[in-house]
Amino acid sequence: MRTGIATVCLSGTLKEKMQACAIAGFDGIEIFEQDLVTSPLSPEEVRKMAADLGLGLDLYQPFRDFDGVTPDLLKANLKRAEAKFKLMERLGMDTILVCSNVATATIDDDDLRAGQLAELAELAGAHGVKVAYEALAWGKYVNDYEHAYRLVEMVDHPNLGTCLDSFHILSRDWDTAPIEQINAEKIFFVQVADAPKLSMDVLSWSRHYRVFPGEGQFELAKFLGHVVRAGYTGPVSLEVFNDVFRQSDTERTAVDAMRSLIWLEEQSAKWLANASGADAPDNKAASRRRYPMELATLPKVNEPAGFNFAEVKADDTAQLEKLLGQLGFGFQGRHRTKDVQLWTMGQARVIINEQAASHSEPAIAALGFDVDSPVIASARAQQLKAPVVARKVQADEEVFQGISAPDSTEIFLCQGSPDGTAAWTHEFGEGLDRSTETQNAVIDHVNLAQPWQHFDEAVLFYTSALALEPQPFAEVPSPSGLVRSQVMETSNGAVRLVLNLAPAQQAQTARKTYQEHIAFAVDNLVAAARSAQERGLEFLQIPANYYEDLDARFDLEPGFLATLKELNLLYDRDANGEFLHFYTATVGSVFFEMVERRGNYDGYGAPNAPVRHAVQYDSLHRV
Amino acid sequence: MRTGIATVCLSGTLKEKMQACAIAGFDGIEIFEQDLVTSPLSPEEVRKMAADLGLGLDLYQPFRDFDGVTPDLLKANLKRAEAKFKLMERLGMDTILVCSNVATATIDDDDLRAGQLAELAELAGAHGVKVAYEALAWGKYVNDYEHAYRLVEMVDHPNLGTCLDSFHILSRDWDTAPIEQINAEKIFFVQVADAPKLSMDVLSWSRHYRVFPGEGQFELAKFLGHVVRAGYTGPVSLEVFNDVFRQSDTERTAVDAMRSLIWLEEQSAKWLANASGADAPDNKAASRRRYPMELATLPKVNEPAGFNFAEVKADDTAQLEKLLGQLGFGFQGRHRTKDVQLWTMGQARVIINEQAASHSEPAIAALGFDVDSPVIASARAQQLKAPVVARKVQADEEVFQGISAPDSTEIFLCQGSPDGTAAWTHEFGEGLDRSTETQNAVIDHVNLAQPWQHFDEAVLFYTSALALEPQPFAEVPSPSGLVRSQVMETSNGAVRLVLNLAPAQQAQTARKTYQEHIAFAVDNLVAAARSAQERGLEFLQIPANYYEDLDARFDLEPGFLATLKELNLLYDRDANGEFLHFYTATVGSVFFEMVERRGNYDGYGAPNAPVRHAVQYDSLHRV
Repeated sequence: MRTGIATVCLSGTLKEKMQACAIAGFDGIEIFEQDLVTSPLSPEEVRKMAADLGLGLDLYQPFRDFDGVTPDLLKANLKRAEAKFKLMERLGMDTILVCSNVATATIDDDDLRAGQLAELAELAGAHGVKVAYEALAWGKYVNDYEHAYRLVEMVDHPNLGTCLDSFHILSRDWDTAPIEQINAEKIFFVQVADAPKLSMDVLSWSRHYRVFPGEGQFELAKFLGHVVRAGYTGPVSLEVFNDVFRQSDTERTAVDAMRSLIWLEEQSAKWLANASGADAPDNKAASRRRYPMELATLPKVNEPAGFNFAEVKADDTAQLEKLLGQLGFGFQGRHRTKDVQLWTMGQARVIINEQAASHSEPAIAALGFDVDSPVIASARAQQLKAPVVARKVQADEEVFQGISAPDSTEIFLCQGSPDGTAAWTHEFGEGLDRSTETQNAVIDHVNLAQPWQHFDEAVLFYTSALALEPQPFAEVPSPSGLVRSQVMETSNGAVRLVLNLAPAQQAQTARKTYQEHIAFAVDNLVAAARSAQERGLEFLQIPANYYEDLDARFDLEPGFLATLKELNLLYDRDANGEFLHFYTATVGSVFFEMVERRGNYDGYGAPNAPVRHAVQYDSLHRV
Repeated sequence: MRTGIATVCLSGTLKEKMQACAIAGFDGIEIFEQDLVTSPLSPEEVRKMAADLGLGLDLYQPFRDFDGVTPDLLKANLKRAEAKFKLMERLGMDTILVCSNVATATIDDDDLRAGQLAELAELAGAHGVKVAYEALAWGKYVNDYEHAYRLVEMVDHPNLGTCLDSFHILSRDWDTAPIEQINAEKIFFVQVADAPKLSMDVLSWSRHYRVFPGEGQFELAKFLGHVVRAGYTGPVSLEVFNDVFRQSDTERTAVDAMRSLIWLEEQSAKWLANASGADAPDNKAASRRRYPMELATLPKVNEPAGFNFAEVKADDTAQLEKLLGQLGFGFQGRHRTKDVQLWTMGQARVIINEQAASHSEPAIAALGFDVDSPVIASARAQQLKAPVVARKVQADEEVFQGISAPDSTEIFLCQGSPDGTAAWTHEFGEGLDRSTETQNAVIDHVNLAQPWQHFDEAVLFYTSALALEPQPFAEVPSPSGLVRSQVMETSNGAVRLVLNLAPAQQAQTARKTYQEHIAFAVDNLVAAARSAQERGLEFLQIPANYYEDLDARFDLEPGFLATLKELNLLYDRDANGEFLHFYTATVGSVFFEMVERRGNYDGYGAPNAPVRHAVQYDSLHRV
């Protein structure tokens, strides 16, 4: 598959964008006109730079408001087009995008439109240019890709074809199956964009909220599958207007973009292999046949079986050790070559890393995941352009395959074991186990704060590299703004990762970093809380008002309510079960949570999150 | 008018919110349940704090999903309600908001709903509580205020009335005139919120994009006018869910909120005085009659007649002096007592203030506006809670009435003169006038960068205190993101102020402050540019590609195009006229623009703004 990206997806100047696209490994780019107009580079310099960078200049865009106009306007439009065709000759480009008319069309007549497009195609041919005509979702008369293609067929000129843009097609819920009926030679270009399903006017949705494939909710694997079945072999190019990407680091966004195409390619290949019934009008054999476009695949991974460990970093680790000990964790000793400690409670393993820079506050530094094959998972992640984490390994130590997540958390791909143990724990000395806790525990979920520029990138990263599934996001009120909360999890809930996008820092107050946490699940939370209380744990103090409201909502048994209140436990209930949890005080930017899931409760106590935020905010402000 | 605000409008804890509301001068507040549930303050402590602060506790809210349910659910809902009524007794509160059912209603039957609301009213009465029933815009069966009122009438119980919320009514485009037919005794509460007109699902619109009155596009003066005519005398309370306000400084947002109510009160009084025809079903005399609710008015001001001056501040002013001299400004001397210089070109006056702190870069510090009466305008601004700027005045010097805008720019209200001169210029010595320019000039517009937390506040500030009119906003692409651009102007265009919301700083690069500028209008821009070029002015360099595109778009006369290109002039044209302009290089965070308006061109060369942003970005990055 030939990969491409429109320069409008990225921040920066045309030069910066082109360099970033080359570094990310794109085959070609679309030049968005405004990027050229505002650039000090001459067309000839752009052409040379692209050649030097090994980038194809695959599409010049957009040419707007051409068709369905009065004769006077047509004349002016053809003159305007000719100027662009001449410019393209200097750029060495041969394909231009012409969008269906939005602003100046006054005549709704396919014969007239076809006649005008024929004139355009003839003029384009004289300059060696191919015109890719695209139906905008909000085109005045032409807003449906099948309509645009009918016009192309009517004109039947070698220099006129169509451009298929997934946003314009999927935002309108057009059926994508008829794509397969399009003559592949008439598909001059294919653009892909994903988007969250939003209920708003389609123009604003398109201009601000598009995201890269895998970061939204469109069925892009199917869309591209139909395109492949049509026999198309040209570029598959990203055209993503996104307010955040426009503000983010150019090179990094280009890599995120490239990852999305690599992932989409694999997903489409899967869709083609699995499609049947209505999606595969041909028989089963046909769905296995080869298509002119080759789709690359990736090393396959299953979803992780669980958390292998969580690692917390600090220069002064005393408070972390104290908290873990109070929660019931046992100290299992120091690593034989590294400055790290291992603390465990049943199968919940926490590494305390003492190698942090001085004056750095405790923070979550790394997560280990149990996978079938760390090497295969690492190969997949690297093919998806995840940055590799180098970790020094001594003889006889387990080799950890590490990659860096978009928020810089280190992700280690570990060999899982059927009994939930981890071989590497033997590398830790004969530590004194001070655990007095008899309960088993596992890491239930981890909650990571995400920088606002890299939230969508993180969703795609965990989806593509780690096979976690994004759930519908939630917004949680906190005293300093709404917190966007995105759960990524495995189908069985063995791995649950919560990505939180904290509100921007208030300019007026020196606010601490947004807090992150690790939650441990036990079988008997009340017992665990009592033991922790006896060990002197500082619980997050839940307001009395909360328990009154809880009682009004759930009509709880008085003794149970008293226990919740006494131990600062929070409670939630839904149709599937119950959820009990408590939080510790915060150390640096880290705190811990302990939870008990009863029945098939599958959530995270979302109604209680505002309480937690408010109490944490209050305690930060009182410090 | 009794003023109120819901605690959900503000950031912070309940305590912080209550204190801020008292400081801003609200009569009462609505307690949003979550703020109480998450607070460590007991209901009794909240009650005492409100009394100490002089704040009424006017509404407890929200109570959701009550009506239209099955008998089982009704029983549980009544139990839930009773717990809240008991809580309200402890808080000393007597009114609760009950929203029409969204989630649990299954029976669409007005008789059933009325019966259930009657049971609720009876229970409420036993606890001394009044129930204000409100139709949510997205209520499952009840989403229209007239429907909610019909139910209230059917029940006919002293403890059941209705709540009118401008958002739920205006977002659905319900006619507001029938409000006057509602029995005022049955209007238990009135909530006001403004909003920009957005085409999106009404729930998201409501939860994220509400703004304070005067910051959006709803016809609130009319809405409140109808409420006043109905005979309502209770609180008019703000309920504004806004993502930004939730993140902004609590006290400051409370003041912004109070300003919006003071302004709305005046606008409604005006509407009542002017209403006629369909809006005033009674005769003219009736529209002048007094209503039970007294609406306070403000000192009246007309829109300003022009800019009196602009002031730029720096510790090293050499570069500013050089730029102004090259543009054709003449040095008119130093002030007799202050460290400021006056530079003029015709009626365009620029003060260079040398009193800036050391190492502070040149920046726009103050703007003077010509008003009919500085004292009246200042009184109005102060009643609108604009912070006063103190400026030391010596004997025989003009007293400047100054207020501080939301972005901290100092706004001075100056005595305008019919001939466009300014009396205070006599306070400057016999400076050497080095001006070689013979053209007149005026300040055409000023472009100020706004902090993102205070953008809506700034719109209301200039609307209410200075009588500028907000125009539809635009979004301009720049290499570091979209720039939101909001024009505020007088009806004749004599004052044009552009508020720009720059994209967030890129985290990865140390970016300079977003640039601001002052634009001067002359009659002959080509001549002014040539003179400036001869004086060695450093123009912002416009790329050659721009002129090619300009030609493709406008088909310009070759000689004219060559002149534009030679002098780095930008060009725009619309149905009303033409616009020529150029920019200087940037000094600190300031640059200058010189413009010529031909015909009735009323814009700002918006199509050229991306070019300016790209070139400025490029030059910052090359430094």
